[in-house]
Amino acid sequence: MLGWFYGGTKSTNVRVSLPAVCFVWQIAMIVLFGVFIRYNEEADTHWQEFRRENNISSDIENDFYFRYPSFQDVHVMIFVGFGFLMTFLKRYSFGAVGFNFLVAAFGIQWALLMQGWFHTLDPATGKILIGVENLINADFCVAGCLIAYGALLGKVSPVQLLVLTLFGVTLFAVEEYIILDLLHARDAGGSMVIHAFGGYYGLAISWVLYRPNLNLSKRLNGSVYHSDVFAMIGTLFLWMFWPSFNSAITDHGDGQHRAAINTYLALASSVLTAVGISSVTQKKGKLDMVHIQNATLAGGVAMGTAAEFMITPYGSLIVGFCCGMISTFGYVFVTPLLEKYLKLQDTCGVHNLHAVPGMLGGFIGAIVAASATEEVYSREGLINTFDFEGDFADRTVGTQGGFQAAACCVAIAFGIVGGGCIPIWGDPADDNCYDDEAYWEALITVTLLDRNFYCHR
Amino acid sequence: MLGWFYGGTKSTNVRVSLPAVCFVWQIAMIVLFGVFIRYNEEADTHWQEFRRENNISSDIENDFYFRYPSFQDVHVMIFVGFGFLMTFLKRYSFGAVGFNFLVAAFGIQWALLMQGWFHTLDPATGKILIGVENLINADFCVAGCLIAYGALLGKVSPVQLLVLTLFGVTLFAVEEYIILDLLHARDAGGSMVIHAFGGYYGLAISWVLYRPNLNLSKRLNGSVYHSDVFAMIGTLFLWMFWPSFNSAITDHGDGQHRAAINTYLALASSVLTAVGISSVTQKKGKLDMVHIQNATLAGGVAMGTAAEFMITPYGSLIVGFCCGMISTFGYVFVTPLLEKYLKLQDTCGVHNLHAVPGMLGGFIGAIVAASATEEVYSREGLINTFDFEGDFADRTVGTQGGFQAAACCVAIAFGIVGGGCIPIWGDPADDNCYDDEAYWEALITVTLLDRNFYCHR
Amino acid sequence: MLGWFYGGTKSTNVRVSLPAVCFVWQIAMIVLFGVFIRYNEEADTHWQEFRRENNISSDIENDFYFRYPSFQDVHVMIFVGFGFLMTFLKRYSFGAVGFNFLVAAFGIQWALLMQGWFHTLDPATGKILIGVENLINADFCVAGCLIAYGALLGKVSPVQLLVLTLFGVTLFAVEEYIILDLLHARDAGGSMVIHAFGGYYGLAISWVLYRPNLNLSKRLNGSVYHSDVFAMIGTLFLWMFWPSFNSAITDHGDGQHRAAINTYLALASSVLTAVGISSVTQKKGKLDMVHIQNATLAGGVAMGTAAEFMITPYGSLIVGFCCGMISTFGYVFVTPLLEKYLKLQDTCGVHNLHAVPGMLGGFIGAIVAASATEEVYSREGLINTFDFEGDFADRTVGTQGGFQAAACCVAIAFGIVGGGCIPIWGDPADDNCYDDEAYWEALITVTLLDRNFYCHR
Repeated sequence: MLGWFYGGTKSTNVRVSLPAVCFVWQIAMIVLFGVFIRYNEEADTHWQEFRRENNISSDIENDFYFRYPSFQDVHVMIFVGFGFLMTFLKRYSFGAVGFNFLVAAFGIQWALLMQGWFHTLDPATGKILIGVENLINADFCVAGCLIAYGALLGKVSPVQLLVLTLFGVTLFAVEEYIILDLLHARDAGGSMVIHAFGGYYGLAISWVLYRPNLNLSKRLNGSVYHSDVFAMIGTLFLWMFWPSFNSAITDHGDGQHRAAINTYLALASSVLTAVGISSVTQKKGKLDMVHIQNATLAGGVAMGTAAEFMITPYGSLIVGFCCGMISTFGYVFVTPLLEKYLKLQDTCGVHNLHAVPGMLGGFIGAIVAASATEEVYSREGLINTFDFEGDFADRTVGTQGGFQAAACCVAIAFGIVGGGCIPIWGDPADDNCYDDEAYWEALITVTLLDRNFYCHR
Repeated sequence: MLGWFYGGTKSTNVRVSLPAVCFVWQIAMIVLFGVFIRYNEEADTHWQEFRRENNISSDIENDFYFRYPSFQDVHVMIFVGFGFLMTFLKRYSFGAVGFNFLVAAFGIQWALLMQGWFHTLDPATGKILIGVENLINADFCVAGCLIAYGALLGKVSPVQLLVLTLFGVTLFAVEEYIILDLLHARDAGGSMVIHAFGGYYGLAISWVLYRPNLNLSKRLNGSVYHSDVFAMIGTLFLWMFWPSFNSAITDHGDGQHRAAINTYLALASSVLTAVGISSVTQKKGKLDMVHIQNATLAGGVAMGTAAEFMITPYGSLIVGFCCGMISTFGYVFVTPLLEKYLKLQDTCGVHNLHAVPGMLGGFIGAIVAASATEEVYSREGLINTFDFEGDFADRTVGTQGGFQAAACCVAIAFGIVGGGCIPIWGDPADDNCYDDEAYWEALITVTLLDRNFYCHR
Repeated sequence: MLGWFYGGTKSTNVRVSLPAVCFVWQIAMIVLFGVFIRYNEEADTHWQEFRRENNISSDIENDFYFRYPSFQDVHVMIFVGFGFLMTFLKRYSFGAVGFNFLVAAFGIQWALLMQGWFHTLDPATGKILIGVENLINADFCVAGCLIAYGALLGKVSPVQLLVLTLFGVTLFAVEEYIILDLLHARDAGGSMVIHAFGGYYGLAISWVLYRPNLNLSKRLNGSVYHSDVFAMIGTLFLWMFWPSFNSAITDHGDGQHRAAINTYLALASSVLTAVGISSVTQKKGKLDMVHIQNATLAGGVAMGTAAEFMITPYGSLIVGFCCGMISTFGYVFVTPLLEKYLKLQDTCGVHNLHAVPGMLGGFIGAIVAASATEEVYSREGLINTFDFEGDFADRTVGTQGGFQAAACCVAIAFGIVGGGCIPIWGDPADDNCYDDEAYWEALITVTLLDRNFYCHR
């Protein structure tokens, strides 16, 4: 039955399954939102009363003004950043940017529900109250699934992507609950919960869907000049807005401020080492566009956990330095080995950009947390930064470091096990890979005299 | 005489008329700004005094900090969003993005004046005092004209576009005054004043300029692969920043917060139904890029009026659900009929993306307003949301709903009548349509060995 | 020895020099950051104590919330704006966007140090304390070097660019110290310190590197249709976010508000006159994409100094009006003469977009400052706007105007002398110019049936 649902073995006809999934799931979302989701007190017309009751002096202290600019930057990263980063394939740009759009638009709705049930369910009313922070978290949650898509780019159908997202968001919410609530780990920029999880989730699915004869599509698994320029749009918007990503949900005031500075520095450092390694590993010192598009971002991934801590500016540079190198080495040496020995076909190299830097970021966070001192943070700063309140008031930074490390392992385990177990069939035939013509309206005429053949000036 | 001004019948030579219009109008703007426009008290060096007099505790309560991030998002939508959305034509990308730029840059100046005369003229001094909210409103006003350009893309000269903008902005300001001030309707995101007006304005002009022999340019009325990718840049920036568009001028605090959430949800929902309908109406379930580029945005258009109301999160999803479907159906079935039976040649399908969803958005706003209750909004919330103050203190929500519906009819009437009556001649010959070579420097050489013919990796 | 370092005469092999420079400099950055750079009190965990001590009522008054949205806009201008503006060359898009990325990522680190030593070194501790304003200033500093790159685009190696940046940032910091601190001139948007300096710096280097036989690469010194569309992405993001650029570091409140309005208006005005002059100087009134991509921005450059003053809205329009014209005339008439008579090969025409409008902007600022009156500004406004405090409490506006003019001369002198003296060798051979294949991984196969040869709809 599921075979039929997915459109039959190796068929690319999704005329039944794709509309069915879109409509059924969207209707389900409407029903569930109707039952569960309401505005929180900062987005509700009762805000003026809430202000008076809580002695808030001005409208500007509505959380909207603290977080909305960062939210919009994150939103750009999800839709333009991830979408365009994947347009590099010569014949899969529609699939990259279009399916990314579809997956993200569905995923954010499901994420609002899943994350709401785990984190912001009001026990009195049974309602999930949402505000701008929930929108950011939903975008974050979807990021995990889009990372997984990176490993599978060109090899899966849109229906499979929607299934991947349904399960991915669900796993994400559970994993996030364990990490943030049960283990009380900090992970504001999601090195662990987003990148390590998403990366390993995608790799595990890619391993399940291994295609021994993928070389049938090999000539299409590459870029052309202008598709690489399109991909740079994605890279740059990711790179520029990563400070917003890592600071979007950190504490008001110094928390957001510091996270942005740290991420900015780590990213700058990544660029130089990615360029250096790219040049030294190629003949005649030429640069490889793949490295520039991807490894330059590794510093941002690796700062996801530690950005809000007092890692110091030079600490951030060191993180970027190492991760830019490691990520580029991954593209040069590890990706070919993964395919050869582990049967891992990783189209975008998410192993090198998300899985490994995310894992490293988790452990960096653990080390930085464990080495925090009252001298550097101040007593109050330590409590604010690590939320040593309530049940966790007596936790020491050493213990916190241990829980951070444990959290990282949880994220990886969820990614690998979850990705290995989800029911995902219906992938296109090997010779339809890396060519989005299977899913997008056919091209009709050949015009050899199109203007792009002319040049001027 | 006007024939001469426009450059002669069916001529594309604008060497006299285009520079003349640009310089005369820009000089007129300088003179009128000199007479009328000054900084408002929040942008003037007297701000510190104003703060003390009005007991404003901090610089951060300057309206700049409430609205500037949203303003920049709106600005991106106007220049990159609209500009790139129209680059999909294979030989009209310069015309799309370049003329969009020209029209918007002129229109915002004229809009500051027209809207200023109607809304922010200081009766004591006869001056228009401007601040960031005026800049946003000017961008909004121009959006109406750019929507009209969408219907005419590839078929009009830049001089015609500037004339269209002069009249369009003028009509917009009058219509907006009637709707917002006389009828006291609410329309913060402009479903009515921007989208319904702009859409019908463009369609009416297109009807006036009907070209029976447009099939002479038919081979150029289509896209190539990479021009569709360029267009996705426009789509995504419109989609991502639409929450800012609908919340940019709503009330501080909960008003902006709620409008952003509602728009975000409606847009997400639109994507799924647009994809679903696109797939089900095409052979083998393939997706049509036209639908993905346009119909995914219908939810944002339709939430323009209701976004600031307590429409509830699931209400927003329902609006997006319906409008994504309706818009896609429009592209598939209605656009061909409009051309065949009503002589409406609508290049970008603004009928389906702006006119109809805008109209629906107006009526949705009326219904939501009419069904508002004190229980849901609180008494204070009701007054704040609908501005039931001054002359309108006694208005009931039922009456408000009626006025909202009337406002929608006013917007449509202004669009149709205005577009049908403006003096617009001088369009290029049929065989120059959809080819911007008529207005942009000629191409000189053919290089068949351009690098984009090579591929690598 | 330096010849070896740069990779040998006219060699494009940078396999030793590029990685060496990247690693050595990045390690140096880490060491220097370790010694000197710390978080400032608004980004440090001691912020809560600082708030209490300074009686700051809310987290929202952290400078982060005043400046971060503008910072992100500036960041987009540096990486996407400058990067994509230079992609117009048919075979140098990787070089444009990729080297821009590398240079900027290195430059911002060095700028944080250089500007920190001159401006924010804490004398007690010997530390540089950084916050969001420092990040903006670092981006500004790098902008000067990227402008210089514009003059050299396609003619220099990445190693040369890094050397250019090292010296450029150093010169910038010294020049900025003289202008802002010693002369106490105001230049928030950097007409003088960024644009005039950067423009003349690039022109001087270009003069040093004059290539008599550059016509060997002439066929590549031009654009193709889609590379011009890519360049429009850069143009538009620069144009849209320029109000943020000029207002990013102005005074809180009215200062930022007014600077944004003035820049917005000047830019709009530039577009109309650039289009007018472009049309009137070409045959049949056609527009030249080069002018639209560049001269439309001249108003923003020219408002860099005066944007925060009370130049009035119509004053801003006049500035944009004149500079749009002057810049377009520059592209049409001056650039060819510069190459012919002064041996200045200026790839992007920075002379017309940055050097001249920047210089004019400096003098416009001087005039506006000199004509400031207490009547218009209020006594308090005058003190706030021009910082007539401390040692400068007794300065008159006339004196201020004189110092502003002197500052402009200092910026130009630094650019010309600095650019003429820096040690920069190792440029590629003439026939490798304007072709980034020399520095980017080779293309392998020819596929004449790439999809971009097909068109659809």
